[in-house]
Amino acid sequence: MSASSPGSDSHSVLLGTETPLQLDCGVTLGAIRMAYCTYGSLNADKSNAILICHALTGDQFAASRQPLTGKDGWWDLMIGPGKILDTDKYFIVCSNVLGGCMGTTGPSETDPKTGKPYGLNFPIITIGDMVRAQVLLQDYLGIESWFSVIGGSMGGMQTLQWAAAYPERVFSAIPIACAARHSAQNIAFHEVGRQAVMADPNWQGGDYYASGRKPTSGLAVARMAAHITYLSEAALHRKFGRNLQDRENLTYGFDADFQVESYLRYQGINFVDRFDANSYLYITRAMDYFDLFTDNNGNLASAFEGTKTRFCVVSFSSDWLFPTSENKQIVHALITAAANVSFVEVETDKGHDAFLLDTPEMLKTIDGFLQSSARSRGLVS
Amino acid sequence: MSASSPGSDSHSVLLGTETPLQLDCGVTLGAIRMAYCTYGSLNADKSNAILICHALTGDQFAASRQPLTGKDGWWDLMIGPGKILDTDKYFIVCSNVLGGCMGTTGPSETDPKTGKPYGLNFPIITIGDMVRAQVLLQDYLGIESWFSVIGGSMGGMQTLQWAAAYPERVFSAIPIACAARHSAQNIAFHEVGRQAVMADPNWQGGDYYASGRKPTSGLAVARMAAHITYLSEAALHRKFGRNLQDRENLTYGFDADFQVESYLRYQGINFVDRFDANSYLYITRAMDYFDLFTDNNGNLASAFEGTKTRFCVVSFSSDWLFPTSENKQIVHALITAAANVSFVEVETDKGHDAFLLDTPEMLKTIDGFLQSSARSRGLVS
Repeated sequence: MSASSPGSDSHSVLLGTETPLQLDCGVTLGAIRMAYCTYGSLNADKSNAILICHALTGDQFAASRQPLTGKDGWWDLMIGPGKILDTDKYFIVCSNVLGGCMGTTGPSETDPKTGKPYGLNFPIITIGDMVRAQVLLQDYLGIESWFSVIGGSMGGMQTLQWAAAYPERVFSAIPIACAARHSAQNIAFHEVGRQAVMADPNWQGGDYYASGRKPTSGLAVARMAAHITYLSEAALHRKFGRNLQDRENLTYGFDADFQVESYLRYQGINFVDRFDANSYLYITRAMDYFDLFTDNNGNLASAFEGTKTRFCVVSFSSDWLFPTSENKQIVHALITAAANVSFVEVETDKGHDAFLLDTPEMLKTIDGFLQSSARSRGLVS
Repeated sequence: MSASSPGSDSHSVLLGTETPLQLDCGVTLGAIRMAYCTYGSLNADKSNAILICHALTGDQFAASRQPLTGKDGWWDLMIGPGKILDTDKYFIVCSNVLGGCMGTTGPSETDPKTGKPYGLNFPIITIGDMVRAQVLLQDYLGIESWFSVIGGSMGGMQTLQWAAAYPERVFSAIPIACAARHSAQNIAFHEVGRQAVMADPNWQGGDYYASGRKPTSGLAVARMAAHITYLSEAALHRKFGRNLQDRENLTYGFDADFQVESYLRYQGINFVDRFDANSYLYITRAMDYFDLFTDNNGNLASAFEGTKTRFCVVSFSSDWLFPTSENKQIVHALITAAANVSFVEVETDKGHDAFLLDTPEMLKTIDGFLQSSARSRGLVS
């Protein structure tokens, strides 16, 4: 049975019933539901667990068929028997983030106080809160420390947050294509996306769930704008250039004459079927708020002082959303903190999305790092 | 009286009454209205005229108060007595492009066939069509050849088109921060903007003029997305970074906590008061269609073969919308065509918008080029 079979590896649990989740914004959330998938088996001493943190629009179905789209898991190429995240060797956990829309508590879920979906009554959450929720899950699973925490983009932010806030719970950490704080340009792109959602009259101030009308047009525009930032200029040129879509000549109209237009429209339209617009607002906001510099009075190194976690930082040469320079800030801080850190800038023209794609140098880097970490952890292959 | 005084230099003329404008899409437009501003005086042999081509959201008020915003002209720093585009020496002409919304025939103007605004019945126009309309204006003014044609961004595309299509009418040409064809990434950003406009229910298929409702929300989102591309990551970091807007702490909400959000919202809101949404669709489309490579069977050099026009190509090191590499393609083609060409990549972190700003190396470059061209043209200072 391939790791992509649906259902059997999908779980949901109520957490924080005894110690409710205390959020950065000051609000206390009651019990939260956490939806997650697991692959492989936890070993006897619970030392082989890997937590995968997903990106902004990702979900827990890292290696399972996504129930809404029917598509294979978003990191199928990484996870499975004999693969880099080897399910014959590791116990892999991937949970839907707090604020998400695939079963974990978020703005589309029912507010126990009102019996209706939260909408904008959901409190603002942070990357720190997402990780706090994952800590509850770690405790629930009885795992003292993750063998590794890994993630790209916002998943990389969570990975950094894990290592900074809970070093003793993280044996190794692999933040990929991320930053220790969200840049002005990235906040700007997120703000455009949020304004696109909020400009859609079907958004209705976030209270759209019962109306039968959803802000799909605005969310599609948000997705289209964001999607451009996930690719490099070179990748767009290589994939599409100025090629025309199923036509010989320009049509002198506003149809999608160019393949790149058709591709973007497709990305927008498909996204809205699987994602909640309010979740998009909340999760982009969490990324905007992420700032490990300010959290540590401007000194990023102090976030990792005395850490025993081993780090492997990976960036992509053509990633302009989280450029190598920002990944290097993390590396420099880790070096200053005398942490054990490897760093690789992968040469690729694929842009930010390279972490989701078959990018050989990335795969080789993570594979080598995990194998050496496994030896240190005393995991027998 | 400063060049920024409104009114006296603003003109409007009906053109193409005898030889109607033949558009690239195959449609013949009847007489077109052309709105333009002039500064300085045409000399006796009409050899001192400079045509300024404006960018996507620019207008003819290059050095006049903009009537809708009350703001100074967008190129005031360049135009005036003793300035680089010296109104004591040159006769400066700047016309609103075909398809525009400041008085030149465009989708918001009345269709003589129906007596109502064109809306989407306006034919698709190209950069070639914009220049054809400007040729009518040149003839109307009795100017045999422009001493110089100059423009940044889409203004640079028009400048290239002028030089390629009407070399004998252009003594010198200064294309700034542009490309000989619009890239896949740039088409993608334009498509996001168009989809944002069209997603606004107030757009009403483009037929919104009589309804009293305009697609201002969608147009504001389009402007916000575009505005990010006009600045560099470095400029956004320098201007805003993660600074908060009029507050000490994060508010844990969707207000504009960050200055960069507040700035972008301001850019969006202000734009819709002075620009027509349909014009935005048509003009972005014209830029997307621009491709001097394909127009010349893939050989850009042949567009300029035998040209006597002198060229000065200017790019900006931090411009990621029209990066230096794309400006260099123009330079290489001109060199291959044995044209007289200067090229300067201006070192600046200001991004694409540097052509509108006080960018000393750009000013010095253009000044030097114009002075040497004036000597060649026999213009006495």
